[in-house]
Amino acid sequence: MVARESTDGERTAGGLPVPEGYEPKSEASLAAYLSGVSAVAAHLGGAAGDWRVREVGDGNLNLVFIVEGPAGGVAVKQALPYVRLVGESWPLPLSRAHFEQMALATEAQHAPGLVPDILHYDQTLALIVMELLQPHIIMRQGMIKAVRYPGFVEAITTFMAGTLFGTSDLALTAEEKKAAMAEFCGNTALCKITEDLIFTEPYRIAENNRWTTPQLDGIAREFREDAALKVAVSRLKLKFLSEAQALIHGDLHTGSVMVTEDDTRVIDPEFAFYGPMGFDIGAVIANLLINYFSQDGHATPEDPRESYQDWVLAATEGVWTGFRAKFLALWRNGATGDAYPAALFADTAGAEALKAEQEAYMDRLFTDSVGFAAAKMIRRILGLAHNIDLEWIEDLDRRAACETRCLRLARDMMVNRANYPTIEAVTAAARKMRDAA
Amino acid sequence: MVARESTDGERTAGGLPVPEGYEPKSEASLAAYLSGVSAVAAHLGGAAGDWRVREVGDGNLNLVFIVEGPAGGVAVKQALPYVRLVGESWPLPLSRAHFEQMALATEAQHAPGLVPDILHYDQTLALIVMELLQPHIIMRQGMIKAVRYPGFVEAITTFMAGTLFGTSDLALTAEEKKAAMAEFCGNTALCKITEDLIFTEPYRIAENNRWTTPQLDGIAREFREDAALKVAVSRLKLKFLSEAQALIHGDLHTGSVMVTEDDTRVIDPEFAFYGPMGFDIGAVIANLLINYFSQDGHATPEDPRESYQDWVLAATEGVWTGFRAKFLALWRNGATGDAYPAALFADTAGAEALKAEQEAYMDRLFTDSVGFAAAKMIRRILGLAHNIDLEWIEDLDRRAACETRCLRLARDMMVNRANYPTIEAVTAAARKMRDAA
Repeated sequence: MVARESTDGERTAGGLPVPEGYEPKSEASLAAYLSGVSAVAAHLGGAAGDWRVREVGDGNLNLVFIVEGPAGGVAVKQALPYVRLVGESWPLPLSRAHFEQMALATEAQHAPGLVPDILHYDQTLALIVMELLQPHIIMRQGMIKAVRYPGFVEAITTFMAGTLFGTSDLALTAEEKKAAMAEFCGNTALCKITEDLIFTEPYRIAENNRWTTPQLDGIAREFREDAALKVAVSRLKLKFLSEAQALIHGDLHTGSVMVTEDDTRVIDPEFAFYGPMGFDIGAVIANLLINYFSQDGHATPEDPRESYQDWVLAATEGVWTGFRAKFLALWRNGATGDAYPAALFADTAGAEALKAEQEAYMDRLFTDSVGFAAAKMIRRILGLAHNIDLEWIEDLDRRAACETRCLRLARDMMVNRANYPTIEAVTAAARKMRDAA
Repeated sequence: MVARESTDGERTAGGLPVPEGYEPKSEASLAAYLSGVSAVAAHLGGAAGDWRVREVGDGNLNLVFIVEGPAGGVAVKQALPYVRLVGESWPLPLSRAHFEQMALATEAQHAPGLVPDILHYDQTLALIVMELLQPHIIMRQGMIKAVRYPGFVEAITTFMAGTLFGTSDLALTAEEKKAAMAEFCGNTALCKITEDLIFTEPYRIAENNRWTTPQLDGIAREFREDAALKVAVSRLKLKFLSEAQALIHGDLHTGSVMVTEDDTRVIDPEFAFYGPMGFDIGAVIANLLINYFSQDGHATPEDPRESYQDWVLAATEGVWTGFRAKFLALWRNGATGDAYPAALFADTAGAEALKAEQEAYMDRLFTDSVGFAAAKMIRRILGLAHNIDLEWIEDLDRRAACETRCLRLARDMMVNRANYPTIEAVTAAARKMRDAA
């Protein structure tokens, strides 16, 4: 596909309007372009003819190239004016590349070393050149093979605490925050994907939905008729629509994390906007729990997974516990924002009351996170986008058994959130759900 | 004061930078300007020489002129680059006129007939020409004289339900709402006045604070040392900073309402932004309650105020009851927004669950409103800006007695919000506070 002029002179790509100068890159054309970007050319070394270019995009939305030269490699991500997975019938604005690079820059500021470095951003081409992360792999793929990542909890909690605290009203003045928020208000097309695919479609008949059939037909219908569940998910949707707590990543699952045993990087923040913090925290928890339940579909007598499942639940606990501790530490040491002004809490009684309020704040945030985690677990089984943790279980009965446990826990987490005051309550319920099977 | 070139060529007014073309208008210069605006000239009739111009601004921030011609009158509001009440030492951006006219236009759309018509807006001059409301007076002034406004409850509830519902996620798509929200993100200077003067300064030693002294010295100190109160008000401040529920007026007290016995108009939305709905509702309730308590300072044997106080409390109840009913009616009949999608609640069980959730939503909103009302009551007695309802009570002991009752009720409303599940609980507590005195 190439950009072209339509009959009335408007430039289009895939039938969709694109700005003057936009052109989807190909393996053939990319090297010549990059050779004109001095920072990138220097990073790769040699000349364009020496560079190996591979299109590797296995995601749903974009073109992704890996370019390797004598001195180093880069990853190149270019937005298409539509959803790659679906095609031109589902347009999606190129501006997502703009929001992604803005989010990456903000994340790098608040969580240095935990996102890829940006070498170049081309707004017209909607193209970002980043350092090549190698020998990193997508964490989800490692977890399916039961690989442990001892640095993950430390890294992801630092990332979340740093980015969420650092862009909140606890760290920013209202003027700073509103200015940043306004910049991300335009990312509505990406937000709408979340609003539809996570908070709405799994709970109604929708063309996009799919699930393991016929095994899950009953529970899918049950969920669509579950009024308490639909009220609960709609309340979360309203929170997603209206609560601008911090710059959230917006798609923080284990497929957005690249890892080695020593290094962890968070990628792909194109869904970023000012939203509820619990959405990011819940996404991490949900994807760990999905993996936990999926292991029963991968275990064999030669490769039992129970001790790995223990590791996954320990990591789940560590995610909340570590995040909570780090967020509170940032708050106690760097409350530079307009919320909870320090001047009000300088006396002894004030300091004690503030400390109690900080704990209460974290408890409220945890309750949000449990709800959002549940929403994420359900959408990955009954909605459009599924997780390979479960999809790669070939025996459909076995897969459906894992999925059913995950759905049952999620339904209870969402509707009866008060029963999950701690992360240990969540992991205990997960364990119990599996033991009961 | 006139705009002038400073030595380095930058245009200034009152020592502050202003855009090219900005010039504060005077009684002498205004008519000539208006004669060049055909819609205004036609409205006034005759020629500029026939028009009577009076500067009448008794507010805190702006120039306000009344211009009367043979055919009709207009009100002209022009922003100054500083707070008029304080002077050039407190700069305030001219952009507030821009936000005010945007808010007026949105309000006119959702609450037709309840705001003044705009005849002309000049962005460079930060100047709005509106229809002259006459024989309207500021509602607060009428209430001090115990004038009843039989149409007020009907009008203010229509205004609030229409504007708050119509700009919320219940009525707008996320894309529509985010676009509107982004436009108002720039109004941070005005928001900061609220954040400081309402949510922060009354609870600490601050130069701006003033109160009836020495009578209230004790309770002012008590409030500054009241950790539970400071936590509660800070939680409300966070909500004000982060919850973008709807386009709120932002300053909806009885001084922003112009009335006759038959007509009610809401003016002065320069504090408008996307914030928590309860802030507007709470502002109305607070200012009615302040008036209620103030009447004991105005009553004389010849002019007892008890039956007026009954009217004020009945109006207070009507404000919430009427708002709730109208907001719910709008929701049930016009849920065109992305929140609580109708498709999820089409079956009988869904419809019933949605109905219960709508009631629960209103209960949560009421709890917010009680908190914000309390914050508004306290700031008007211990902060910078006071209400003439109380200020006009000349006997300081008598005034302080009224103020103390108002403060005690507000403190309980803010800290023990669960004790006020209904508006009747609020009015009963107000009555009891007065009876106990």
